[in-house]
Amino acid sequence: MAQKPSIPKGTRDFSPIEVAKRNYIIDTIREQFRLFGFQPIETPSFENSETLMGKYGEEGDRLIFKILNSGDYLNKIDEALYATKDSNKIISKISEKALRYDLTVPFARYVVQHQNEIDFPFKRFQIQPVWRADRPQKGRFREFFQCDADVVGSKSLFQEFDFIKLYDRVFTKLDLKGVTIKMNNRKILSGIAEVIGASDKLIDFTVALDKLDKIGEDGVKKEMLSKGISEKAIEKVKPLFNFAGTTSEKIENLRGMLSSSEEGLKGVEELQFIVNAIQEMPLETATLDLDVTLARGLNYYTGAIFEVSAPDTVSMGSIGGGGRYDDLTGIFGLKDVSGVGISFGLDRIYLVIEELGLFPDAVIPATKVLFINFGNKEALYSLKVVDLLRKEGVTAEIYPDDAKMKKQMNYANKRNIPFVVLVGTSEMENNTFTVKDMVSGDQKEVDFVGLRKLFE
Amino acid sequence: MAQKPSIPKGTRDFSPIEVAKRNYIIDTIREQFRLFGFQPIETPSFENSETLMGKYGEEGDRLIFKILNSGDYLNKIDEALYATKDSNKIISKISEKALRYDLTVPFARYVVQHQNEIDFPFKRFQIQPVWRADRPQKGRFREFFQCDADVVGSKSLFQEFDFIKLYDRVFTKLDLKGVTIKMNNRKILSGIAEVIGASDKLIDFTVALDKLDKIGEDGVKKEMLSKGISEKAIEKVKPLFNFAGTTSEKIENLRGMLSSSEEGLKGVEELQFIVNAIQEMPLETATLDLDVTLARGLNYYTGAIFEVSAPDTVSMGSIGGGGRYDDLTGIFGLKDVSGVGISFGLDRIYLVIEELGLFPDAVIPATKVLFINFGNKEALYSLKVVDLLRKEGVTAEIYPDDAKMKKQMNYANKRNIPFVVLVGTSEMENNTFTVKDMVSGDQKEVDFVGLRKLFE
Repeated sequence: MAQKPSIPKGTRDFSPIEVAKRNYIIDTIREQFRLFGFQPIETPSFENSETLMGKYGEEGDRLIFKILNSGDYLNKIDEALYATKDSNKIISKISEKALRYDLTVPFARYVVQHQNEIDFPFKRFQIQPVWRADRPQKGRFREFFQCDADVVGSKSLFQEFDFIKLYDRVFTKLDLKGVTIKMNNRKILSGIAEVIGASDKLIDFTVALDKLDKIGEDGVKKEMLSKGISEKAIEKVKPLFNFAGTTSEKIENLRGMLSSSEEGLKGVEELQFIVNAIQEMPLETATLDLDVTLARGLNYYTGAIFEVSAPDTVSMGSIGGGGRYDDLTGIFGLKDVSGVGISFGLDRIYLVIEELGLFPDAVIPATKVLFINFGNKEALYSLKVVDLLRKEGVTAEIYPDDAKMKKQMNYANKRNIPFVVLVGTSEMENNTFTVKDMVSGDQKEVDFVGLRKLFE
Repeated sequence: MAQKPSIPKGTRDFSPIEVAKRNYIIDTIREQFRLFGFQPIETPSFENSETLMGKYGEEGDRLIFKILNSGDYLNKIDEALYATKDSNKIISKISEKALRYDLTVPFARYVVQHQNEIDFPFKRFQIQPVWRADRPQKGRFREFFQCDADVVGSKSLFQEFDFIKLYDRVFTKLDLKGVTIKMNNRKILSGIAEVIGASDKLIDFTVALDKLDKIGEDGVKKEMLSKGISEKAIEKVKPLFNFAGTTSEKIENLRGMLSSSEEGLKGVEELQFIVNAIQEMPLETATLDLDVTLARGLNYYTGAIFEVSAPDTVSMGSIGGGGRYDDLTGIFGLKDVSGVGISFGLDRIYLVIEELGLFPDAVIPATKVLFINFGNKEALYSLKVVDLLRKEGVTAEIYPDDAKMKKQMNYANKRNIPFVVLVGTSEMENNTFTVKDMVSGDQKEVDFVGLRKLFE
């Protein structure tokens, strides 16, 4: 019996309309990456396992898709090891390649491998799929695209500024207003840890603080105390409990609070620089917000941390994120190359734009005109016209068979083709075309000039 | 010690210039796919193993990359099976997914799975990577892109005609002149088999015939005899040994030769139809050639067979191919859906265009202007201008650090940035920009209007 076809869970087929919508987002992001001076690279879908393993923590290692070696893959395993039947121990013997898990580690590998061909600072972008054996849920898939831009080889804070402008520009171009770009700085977090006297409590601290809206100041303090953060320490960072106001006011608050931490003050200065620059050149539609609870990839980032939230009207996790990492390429042997980068979450941006109805109609590139097929002679005549139209950039088709008129018209209707052209004996004799407007239902006879005019 | 980074054999990193060149080819193909009325779809990188296995023959099955199940993958294997240590028997227990091997089988799966959403005839295109565990060699990689266009749901020969026009148009647009589109028909081959009295000898026959150029008529006949094809049979298809002349002459020869085979004559008629249509609407730069030795995917195609050869000046295998298959979706339970399609071999086309020096200079989207960074104040001032230029579609950058002038100039030079702008105190006071033309070395002072003019 024939198989009932399906696809692996967490993966998707994309229909023509979905591809068109996805490409609209990708093309918008790519265009701005280019205008901002980023250059595209691409890396292989799979990397040597040792390139990826151990770079994303234990959880990450588990979620990496491994590729089975070709041929008699069990042959390499010695009997003693085979007898253990231990999946973890045996894996490195039967799998040497793995699908990439993100674009950042392959990029670091690329920079180190090609360091002699690269002119630093290197501004690269990369738009490719990544794979994770994660449990699928809304907005989370096992195959999904990442759109990353990074600069390596410069510590200039103008990069951070440029990335904020880039986020703002892309979301403005997508007509997605009301996006919030949340910003923090790892050095601020280190400063807070210093001030509360325990860097190992920092995550507990930020997690608790993040609940301020829900459980109130007292609730947050209670949670912090329960995690072993002292009252004295909490007192020192009290301004965080009323952390409202403009970004400038927030920065002033932080400056006072972190006055005893050199690193904390360095973080404040970095934030100040970026905020000043944005004041000089305001954002178009996004809002920049300082969020001291933002701690994504804490072990990874060393300076600025970014995360982008969709407009409040949509319930969706972050639609982008990034930050500065001072030693990304160190894992591959190239020290002291500072990098900073951001990522756009294509799939979530898609869901947000879909939910808000912001996809422009013109996104879907439909066929503009269908020629009805009345038989070989007429079809061949029509094809010459189809050929001319295509050469002028008009998507034109002829119905492949001389099927019943109704069937051909139905096809045009279902595919939303706006014009249908009928060429029979009399049209061929008179050098004319009978054009039916599929929206209005109007029908008229035109010459070739008149036909072309329809598509100008 | 840090790892020395590398990538798996048969895979590639693509530098910015390579990505730009690849995209030039892909965009050209995609644009023509669209103008010819094809719609894009995308399918997942990996499919359920049962979707792919058994579809490409034994050799194909071996070359499919299998993905290891997540978690404790050995756990599912019972002890008796485990004890066999038989890689082939165990594989289905530890791997349920596999990377796609081509775009045709996933497309067939897509059509069957989504048949109720599709309006037939369905003209789709698909441009995505595929993976094969093949031995890498020149023009053959383990990860490579296929660019496919297919129509399913119509038996009209106008489709075959349209695909020939599509090949011609794409290669014309790529300025790749002298391409040969070789055409054959499975029914012609069946007819020859009928005439020589043994369908099981057909492959031996075509392989031998293909050597005519090298070993001459006598050599070919000798080989055919040695394969058990009788002298009488060889006599019947004698015209094939002098198979020269125009396509029309070749067709006439075939008609005579295959007069006793109904299927053969049907094939001749199909070829005749296509050749007539092309005579009415000649190709722009490609040549259509009838090649009776063309037998690619013999068990797969049921009508027309196509293969595209690069110009004679380049030594390269086929750069495209395709044909008609009357029951592709049958393997997934949907009967009687005829399809016809073609594929472009991106990597080989790239190598041909590179070898012939046909990539236009404009393909590489370089940054148009670099602003020199003289310090924070000047940089911030410059960034406002950078912002304006980007909004007008000019790729503009500022050097991120106030490094030495020479270093910044070197960066512009290496990246082939044509203009460098210097904004110091006096320029800021006078609202001017000092522009250096990096090609001529000329330097001049302009206002913003003058600056913009450089990029019109």
